[in-house]
Amino acid sequence: MVNLRIPGPIPVPDDILDKMSTQMMNHRGPKFKEMLYRITDGLKQVFHTENDIFVLTSSGTGAMEAAVANTLSPGEKVLCASIGSFGDRFGKIASVFGADVTRLNFPQGTAVVVDELRRVLDANPEITSVLVTHNETNTGVTNDLEPIARVVKGEFDKLLLVDGISSVCSLPLKTDEWDLDVVATASQKGWMLPPGLAFISMSERAWAANEKSTMPRFYFNLSEYKRYFDMGQPPWTPNLSAMYALDYALTKIVAEGVENVWKRHADIAQMTRDGIRALGLEVFPDDSVASNTVTAVKMPEGVDADELRKHVLQDHNVVLAGAYGELTGKMFRIGHLGYVSTEEIEQMLDAIKASLPKVGIGV
Amino acid sequence: MVNLRIPGPIPVPDDILDKMSTQMMNHRGPKFKEMLYRITDGLKQVFHTENDIFVLTSSGTGAMEAAVANTLSPGEKVLCASIGSFGDRFGKIASVFGADVTRLNFPQGTAVVVDELRRVLDANPEITSVLVTHNETNTGVTNDLEPIARVVKGEFDKLLLVDGISSVCSLPLKTDEWDLDVVATASQKGWMLPPGLAFISMSERAWAANEKSTMPRFYFNLSEYKRYFDMGQPPWTPNLSAMYALDYALTKIVAEGVENVWKRHADIAQMTRDGIRALGLEVFPDDSVASNTVTAVKMPEGVDADELRKHVLQDHNVVLAGAYGELTGKMFRIGHLGYVSTEEIEQMLDAIKASLPKVGIGV
Repeated sequence: MVNLRIPGPIPVPDDILDKMSTQMMNHRGPKFKEMLYRITDGLKQVFHTENDIFVLTSSGTGAMEAAVANTLSPGEKVLCASIGSFGDRFGKIASVFGADVTRLNFPQGTAVVVDELRRVLDANPEITSVLVTHNETNTGVTNDLEPIARVVKGEFDKLLLVDGISSVCSLPLKTDEWDLDVVATASQKGWMLPPGLAFISMSERAWAANEKSTMPRFYFNLSEYKRYFDMGQPPWTPNLSAMYALDYALTKIVAEGVENVWKRHADIAQMTRDGIRALGLEVFPDDSVASNTVTAVKMPEGVDADELRKHVLQDHNVVLAGAYGELTGKMFRIGHLGYVSTEEIEQMLDAIKASLPKVGIGV
Repeated sequence: MVNLRIPGPIPVPDDILDKMSTQMMNHRGPKFKEMLYRITDGLKQVFHTENDIFVLTSSGTGAMEAAVANTLSPGEKVLCASIGSFGDRFGKIASVFGADVTRLNFPQGTAVVVDELRRVLDANPEITSVLVTHNETNTGVTNDLEPIARVVKGEFDKLLLVDGISSVCSLPLKTDEWDLDVVATASQKGWMLPPGLAFISMSERAWAANEKSTMPRFYFNLSEYKRYFDMGQPPWTPNLSAMYALDYALTKIVAEGVENVWKRHADIAQMTRDGIRALGLEVFPDDSVASNTVTAVKMPEGVDADELRKHVLQDHNVVLAGAYGELTGKMFRIGHLGYVSTEEIEQMLDAIKASLPKVGIGV
């Protein structure tokens, strides 16, 4: 049995996986309409919002493009506060679609420093919008989103677009209370689902930006999603199978209580970090910013993380994730989002422990 | 048991549906790489091509956007030859992304007239590219693509983008023999799969256009798909579940033989048209252009097609499709793509027959 410990796709619980084999229905019929409205109500509870939420047939990257292309215009001044590869991607999407992107980059393994953000916004009053990643999957760092939002929205009154792909449903995020304008996330994360769906929320402020936005959009045109939503339909044929599974998974999430789901993620993450340190390994970021959905583990100087991953996979059937970009080979990453048992974490820690001598680390 | 007779999503055979519940794997690991390459080989057989083919996580509309955004530039002169709503959509995508679109519209229920196409291309030498729908799902008309391609490519040497969403794998289409530059299609059609994946082929000529193309693209950036393909990966997390099902369905399609799949579609379509006429109803297009994947049925003057559909659904559990746009209420549509049994067509015809008196038609 494979122990899939990458930060998505996550192992899907059997009862949810079963729903993926549900037979097709008419996506323009009354039963679909009921399902779409029920799903949307569930999503709103998890997002902690009364804003519109749409279900897209895409990966999370598609939802990031939707966030950008539906609210910004070519030439518009935008700030991208990045703490890693996925933050950089958000800025790149905006710049590919013509925005004038100012980049505020923080060192790998650290989070956004609010005072820096304030300084840049203060010095660049022409900036209209801020792009930020809630949880940087590549470094295992979670930004403290609430104070970031207080600066961006409360102090400067800018539009705030949030990549919540590896955070929503796993980490505390309160869309309305924190006044987040657009939040994008994807199914193969805390939602306990296969990949293939993305979810995006739009505040009134985001809709106002949408009216002025001139970036081209068709497949991800959220106005069309809104228009069709009133008929209980999506504009294009949706990933029905994953919607059946989502419909079911949401009943479980709501029954458990979203706050309890957050707590479950925090507990399993703590167990993971404690276990990694007990092996004499180093968690890459500081505890104050370490993510509760993905743990990045730094290798001692001269040890190849990908070599360790190979042994762990070959000898123990545990799949760890590598790191992107300049961190490749220097770190490995452990995904612990969705439903994760303590046994799975223990088996993974045992597998790492047994493999350390093979890369020259004595335990 | 519902008899889902819409032109996608189609009823998925049980053995294929079962594959949707396969557990997740690492989409950046060696097993995925094997699957991606195996799938791509199968797709090439069905497309009849040696061109690159990519698997997108989107609906067919996403693949239409990919076709446009990867090959055209804002301001570029493009001809959209449309025979209905989906043809119009193709032109609209191009114009949303900034192309200068000339529209050549043919009457609803008819196909592209090649002499007209030739006349417009001759009169507008600045046109670089032609958009055309192979099978217009809204009117049940199939364009004769081979002579269209001979004019566009052979006589005028333009780039040819084909919406093959409701045709590829169901109707004869030979990408290389007919020299089609871009062909886009989607999983919930003849492929016998749930919705959630789209497939797109790119010729060398299309890649040459891609190099000069300046339309913005990120999620649908096919250069990124190509770059990652060499590593056996997709750039973004894919709809794994539908890929498992596709992997399996392709073995069935290839074993049956693509030509036999086309023949099967032709036979079941003929049975459908014969049955509709035996009920005294009229097939909307002429036999010479009638589609073998979807049959559009015209109602007698004064009879509401949607009223008939309601009775057929309520009393017999048969789901027929309505028509879009100006044809709403005047026609209904029958989907017969993917795997369809003669029993399903018979049951549907019986259901329509029994419901005709309820809308005032004596049989």
